[in-house]
Amino acid sequence: MAQLPLYTIGIDYGTESGRAAVIRTSDGLALAEAVTPYAHGVMDRHLPDGTLLGREWALQHPQDYLDVLQQAVPAAVAASGVSPDQIVGIGIDFTACTVLPTRHDGTPLCFLPEYENRPHAWVKLWKHHAAQPQADRINALAEQRNEPWLARYGGKISSEWLFAKALQVLEEDPEVYAHAARFIEAADWVVWQLTGVETRNACTAGYKAMVQGGEYPPTDYFAALHPAFAGVVDEKLGRELSPLGALAGRLNEQAAQWTGLLAGTAVAVANVDAHVTAPAAGVTGPGQLVAIMGTSTCHVLIGETLAEVPGMCGVVDGGIVPGQYGYEAGQSGVGDIFAWLVKHLVAPEYHQRAREAGISLHAVLEQDAAQQRPGEHGLIALDWWNGNRSVLVDANLSGVVVGLTLATRAPDLYRALIEATAYGTRVIVENFEANGVPVRELVIAGGLKKNRMLMQIYADVTNRPLSVLDVEQGPALGSAMHAAVAAGIYPGIQAAAEAMGQVQRGVYTPNPANVAVYDQLYAEYLTLHDYFGRGLNDVMKRLKRLAAAGVSPAAVPTDVPTAAPLEVAQ
Amino acid sequence: MAQLPLYTIGIDYGTESGRAAVIRTSDGLALAEAVTPYAHGVMDRHLPDGTLLGREWALQHPQDYLDVLQQAVPAAVAASGVSPDQIVGIGIDFTACTVLPTRHDGTPLCFLPEYENRPHAWVKLWKHHAAQPQADRINALAEQRNEPWLARYGGKISSEWLFAKALQVLEEDPEVYAHAARFIEAADWVVWQLTGVETRNACTAGYKAMVQGGEYPPTDYFAALHPAFAGVVDEKLGRELSPLGALAGRLNEQAAQWTGLLAGTAVAVANVDAHVTAPAAGVTGPGQLVAIMGTSTCHVLIGETLAEVPGMCGVVDGGIVPGQYGYEAGQSGVGDIFAWLVKHLVAPEYHQRAREAGISLHAVLEQDAAQQRPGEHGLIALDWWNGNRSVLVDANLSGVVVGLTLATRAPDLYRALIEATAYGTRVIVENFEANGVPVRELVIAGGLKKNRMLMQIYADVTNRPLSVLDVEQGPALGSAMHAAVAAGIYPGIQAAAEAMGQVQRGVYTPNPANVAVYDQLYAEYLTLHDYFGRGLNDVMKRLKRLAAAGVSPAAVPTDVPTAAPLEVAQ
Repeated sequence: MAQLPLYTIGIDYGTESGRAAVIRTSDGLALAEAVTPYAHGVMDRHLPDGTLLGREWALQHPQDYLDVLQQAVPAAVAASGVSPDQIVGIGIDFTACTVLPTRHDGTPLCFLPEYENRPHAWVKLWKHHAAQPQADRINALAEQRNEPWLARYGGKISSEWLFAKALQVLEEDPEVYAHAARFIEAADWVVWQLTGVETRNACTAGYKAMVQGGEYPPTDYFAALHPAFAGVVDEKLGRELSPLGALAGRLNEQAAQWTGLLAGTAVAVANVDAHVTAPAAGVTGPGQLVAIMGTSTCHVLIGETLAEVPGMCGVVDGGIVPGQYGYEAGQSGVGDIFAWLVKHLVAPEYHQRAREAGISLHAVLEQDAAQQRPGEHGLIALDWWNGNRSVLVDANLSGVVVGLTLATRAPDLYRALIEATAYGTRVIVENFEANGVPVRELVIAGGLKKNRMLMQIYADVTNRPLSVLDVEQGPALGSAMHAAVAAGIYPGIQAAAEAMGQVQRGVYTPNPANVAVYDQLYAEYLTLHDYFGRGLNDVMKRLKRLAAAGVSPAAVPTDVPTAAPLEVAQ
Repeated sequence: MAQLPLYTIGIDYGTESGRAAVIRTSDGLALAEAVTPYAHGVMDRHLPDGTLLGREWALQHPQDYLDVLQQAVPAAVAASGVSPDQIVGIGIDFTACTVLPTRHDGTPLCFLPEYENRPHAWVKLWKHHAAQPQADRINALAEQRNEPWLARYGGKISSEWLFAKALQVLEEDPEVYAHAARFIEAADWVVWQLTGVETRNACTAGYKAMVQGGEYPPTDYFAALHPAFAGVVDEKLGRELSPLGALAGRLNEQAAQWTGLLAGTAVAVANVDAHVTAPAAGVTGPGQLVAIMGTSTCHVLIGETLAEVPGMCGVVDGGIVPGQYGYEAGQSGVGDIFAWLVKHLVAPEYHQRAREAGISLHAVLEQDAAQQRPGEHGLIALDWWNGNRSVLVDANLSGVVVGLTLATRAPDLYRALIEATAYGTRVIVENFEANGVPVRELVIAGGLKKNRMLMQIYADVTNRPLSVLDVEQGPALGSAMHAAVAAGIYPGIQAAAEAMGQVQRGVYTPNPANVAVYDQLYAEYLTLHDYFGRGLNDVMKRLKRLAAAGVSPAAVPTDVPTAAPLEVAQ
């Protein structure tokens, strides 16, 4: 008797919305999906009650995550036509580090009326950057003490990570800190809501909470940061970690009601959106760098051995696949640099062409840019509009364009910016290789994989073949794979990835003539990269300091009117 | 019995048109003016008969100059209501080096049917740049021979100058060269047409034909360039030079008919548009740098002593005022860089604001940019979109912007580009001072003087007060002054400038708080200036070479379609 096919649900929690997909476990086919935008989005100005937030803050509302369970999941199931009894597992992935304080029972402090006007009671989203002073101290102390874990994070940890955020709570709102029985990743919090069981996934703990070899940094380190911080791990986190693909628990009655799934359905340990994309693209072994390219790019890579790679984001044992070393690096500005150009620096004539042709402004610029041979525009750029995440790990760097002439047009800049991000990727690839982590091939996921000119440029600049994740929603697929493992369909993520992974191999291959030109341009990029990025000329930092300096009334010329036209006489 | 007031005519020959003004000799008041656009404009694609021109060519039609005499002059006189017998002199100024081959009687070779299809028979406009190979050899040979005049031109002469252009004629069309009895500046050619007398003005000869101490380079130097070039001075130019303000001759019958003026009216020796602006602004002595700011900027400055200033355009005894040293420097891109930004890199929202407010796009950008304190935009730029004329004298440099972020907007770039040109001016000022030519004050002429934000930035960046030439048409006024001297109204140009000069002193004064910030930014500019401009990183030249490399079919990826949109996923 033929068995009915089995399915799992993958839920991808992004920055602005959550997306649920119904996936067939035999081959990874996505039957249906549904998206629930977060009603509160990213809160970076004020709380729901109007309480103002400081600069660099970014919060979220936990109810938005529950809404995804109550809306996107049943909608996807209904659209798939699959009966709930054929759905054997649920897996989720999340942005990280996105973290919140809760009571012992998991109730977010921000759900309590007495805390709803306290910013520190809310979810701190990954891009909450107000804990930079805490991160600076965390780094300085770790360096001073020669903490061995520091090198596992490229020598520097980010203000986005868990302990910087927790320390900010302690220092700025000790009452919230004291009343936070738990401090937990939103990823793990959602799994807690689904199962009633508190787990901590090894991926987030490793990349964002400095766990190495199963251990957090020592208590005396935390004590040296702040006396009241000494017990943060034991009091607020707990030391037990769950491997990826493990069963976190089973769907409880409440969550079954929310989702319309059967109580008792297997729920996998949570994961991070970038890392879960690797198995979705069939990558569970060394040599393939998965680049998830959107507004920014995250690179994940598996290595057979442990290497300390300067300037990477982190290496975690079992961080991508249990039993292997998962490496992470990143570029902090990619698609958002192109979007910046398109939105702010394109003259009306191109907008008109886009309207007339019924295509996007991006497509118009690409039409012109794709006609060019490499080097033709005469430009080279450093892609640091948003700072540099790897390998310089410096948020105070900024963008550069060299080679501007009166003949430079927006499509030239468009192509130069795409190339600059490709050079940035090549720096990361070469840095991994130089430190003993081979990279033979790039696998591209994320929204930018649709852009064929960009993809060819990446193949030519890196001189490596490009494979492509063949579905739109890689993270949801990866989460569904982990659900299949947790449900016992597959013995491990490797087997799941083999059956369910979706990748097209060698879609783009390097063009040797282009490679030769890009080798020359990359050499120029490297020279400028080191000149501006490695302390030879710290002009970018000095410019940022001048820009951030308080407005001095004396510094504003009072005799300068604002409307005198600047006309140019021939 | 009260004498009737006396007037002179100043004619300013620009790149696109000629302008005549009727000026009162007692006080410099402009009664009327008229403009005649050149019917043939700048011929950079083909001759009037359709003969195609090469890259970097720029020619003009001598008939266009005569049309100015026949149209603009009578129109201005008619509009002024002044009777021709009250008009006692005519003076002209011209772009330079703008030069043409003629027969012995002054007939341009291009007027002869047998030459009208020969590009080298026409007027080579100042911005004809096709003689670069000849200029390179002129420079190399001068260096090799240690020619003493080379240092008077900052160590390098330009492809725009007379001998480069003449040598190009000789080498590319020896027949035209052989049949050119004279090779003459258009400025002097027009005076020849007015008077029937061939003169050579000391200003153009000094700045553009390498005359120093009254002497051209030696014959054996020219012979070494090309055997047939040995006699170029004696055969084609003649050695007699006429000082500025001298009487070139008197209006002949033909020219009296053209202009409607009286035959016998005094005609002054011709001048260069930039240099004639100095007396128009009342500047006839040392310490005031006159900046004529338009698409590019020309700086003229008087010094009491002879100094060899590296990277300046030239120093000429009597080049601005007889008996004093006239210095010249330049910035090859100023207003045209701002115009480039405004035309090509401004999003529709600003265009809409301009339309709604009924102001120019420049004015909209300035509204926003003028709100900023110095340094607020976090940018610094090198203003080399069009290369660098002074002090690096390198056409192969290009523009740079450092400090770009996702928050950068067009008004930020607009302000940064204006500031970059101000830093460029400060480099020139400091270079003069460091080499013994003091600069106490800037006097601004040209179209950009109307822009008050720009002017305040220039005062703050240079930390010097700014005076402003108080009339629209400085060159025409300066030419009319020289006409007054030639007519004997004043004993010399100093006296004429004192009576007729139009300058508002100290219109902008440096704001000390801004000066302090700009000193810091200028230090950054200097570091980048030397890094990119003095051989530490010749990336700009390598980029230009790559850009100019021929299109190799193999280098164009054939598998890159042109219409795939690049959309950015969150």
